[in-house]
Amino acid sequence: MSDAAFLGWMTAIQQEMETTLDALLPSADHEPRALNQAMRYATLGGGKRVRALLTYAAGELGQAPAGALARAAAAVEMIHAYSLVHDDLPCMDDDVLRRGKATCHVAFDEATALLAGDALQTQAFAVLAAPELGVEPARQLDMLRLLAHASGPLGMAGGQAIDLASVGQALNLPQLEFMHALKTGALIRASVLLGALAGEALPAEQMGRLDHFSRVIGLAFQVVDDVLDCEADSATLGKTAGKDAAHDKPTYVSLLGLAEARRMARELRDQAFAALEPFGARAERLRALADYIVVRSF
Amino acid sequence: MSDAAFLGWMTAIQQEMETTLDALLPSADHEPRALNQAMRYATLGGGKRVRALLTYAAGELGQAPAGALARAAAAVEMIHAYSLVHDDLPCMDDDVLRRGKATCHVAFDEATALLAGDALQTQAFAVLAAPELGVEPARQLDMLRLLAHASGPLGMAGGQAIDLASVGQALNLPQLEFMHALKTGALIRASVLLGALAGEALPAEQMGRLDHFSRVIGLAFQVVDDVLDCEADSATLGKTAGKDAAHDKPTYVSLLGLAEARRMARELRDQAFAALEPFGARAERLRALADYIVVRSF
Repeated sequence: MSDAAFLGWMTAIQQEMETTLDALLPSADHEPRALNQAMRYATLGGGKRVRALLTYAAGELGQAPAGALARAAAAVEMIHAYSLVHDDLPCMDDDVLRRGKATCHVAFDEATALLAGDALQTQAFAVLAAPELGVEPARQLDMLRLLAHASGPLGMAGGQAIDLASVGQALNLPQLEFMHALKTGALIRASVLLGALAGEALPAEQMGRLDHFSRVIGLAFQVVDDVLDCEADSATLGKTAGKDAAHDKPTYVSLLGLAEARRMARELRDQAFAALEPFGARAERLRALADYIVVRSF
Repeated sequence: MSDAAFLGWMTAIQQEMETTLDALLPSADHEPRALNQAMRYATLGGGKRVRALLTYAAGELGQAPAGALARAAAAVEMIHAYSLVHDDLPCMDDDVLRRGKATCHVAFDEATALLAGDALQTQAFAVLAAPELGVEPARQLDMLRLLAHASGPLGMAGGQAIDLASVGQALNLPQLEFMHALKTGALIRASVLLGALAGEALPAEQMGRLDHFSRVIGLAFQVVDDVLDCEADSATLGKTAGKDAAHDKPTYVSLLGLAEARRMARELRDQAFAALEPFGARAERLRALADYIVVRSF
């Protein structure tokens, strides 16, 4: 698809996501106000919504209804937002800048940010469990299990724990890949598969290919993140740049060097394309997204 | 039922809960070890399991299968354990003693405790969404929605946010009741209703009575907690005593005085008994639990 068509679609989904999240988050005018405001602050008005875009794009494979995709994507974005709020807390990365604005605990306070993250996780499961999802119950339970698995000790939270333990350690490449497969990869994988589950059932072989696509693209996403973190300054990035190096955390760039990390990202994109091959035109947007994820830096 | 029969049942359920939680929590021998160990430390080997007991007792109304009750009760206990871990963090109550041992962030570290609480919440939803629950999918989704609603901004997390905002404030009795209805009441209500939902469907009128019972007993639980907090020393309580007064937090005792708070607890027990009246012998254990909750102090 053309760049203009892709950018138009991306902007439309980003706007739809903003409207959906606004409707699914508790009102800032209701008690408890500080909590509701912090939940909204951490979720609305920022981010490229890569995970939501993946859900929508994967939804095209099984002609998923727009309402189901909106809720599934919103649930993933809430889990992502909660993880950022907690990751930025003083006892974790102690960061002050996120998506170009003050982090949640700086804008509010630590206790409110802690609770806002907690409540965002809960809200994600509430949104996905709601009857308004419009997916038949057994399939809806599959989606809930997928999100829970991707977020818990064998997914995102587990990856963050390994990340914590890795500061100052000399991780090798397989260890770094395992950490990222959990920390960021699991939720990216869930974003893709939730989009597919929200639509007509796909044959097992196709779900397997989509699973492979999602793992490859999750890895590419992290490699590119490390490249960006190394290259960019904080203003362009919207978050504190160079912090992994400053915290002595291993990255793909520190292990492979910048040129090799870039090459790896492009190779992963090619693998992602190959996984999508049998889907034909239905996977056009997934392909464009894979391209977007890899080329956003170079 | 006799005290001996009730105590025997309570001990059996507490042991069953320990075994169930042990099986449903990630192994301490697997990576990420610190996270898994902290999740287990915060959940196993402590607490009276009042919420689990309520789930099991309410399960008798609709002859719920033991496996479904075990998972539902475990999910509630995981949510409860997560809330205690986060509540004890330095940015919240900054407490060092819980269930007679060091709090999670003291035994491990703040970052690990934060992630352990996060992952316990996720695990609660995973456990309730699992096919092993053995409840038909539409009903299982009702149970997931109930747990999510009880834990989120209109439930436990919302109550904690109101509690935070109330430090040093002169709350009146309705405001205090609203705060506790969310902070502790919502999860106690969910414990009861999950037990009922795990079994044969009850008529709407009976579910309404059970709902009323659960709200009254949740309120009684908090009133008794305040009485205990005022009377007991830390060794008996297994957590830091007198901390609400020390933090200048309003309590039922500070608003009503000790004698009137005790009278209120007994009156709430009578209301709880009245709500259960039409259930006859099936509600024997719920009645014994209501008694236990109120008389554990006097």
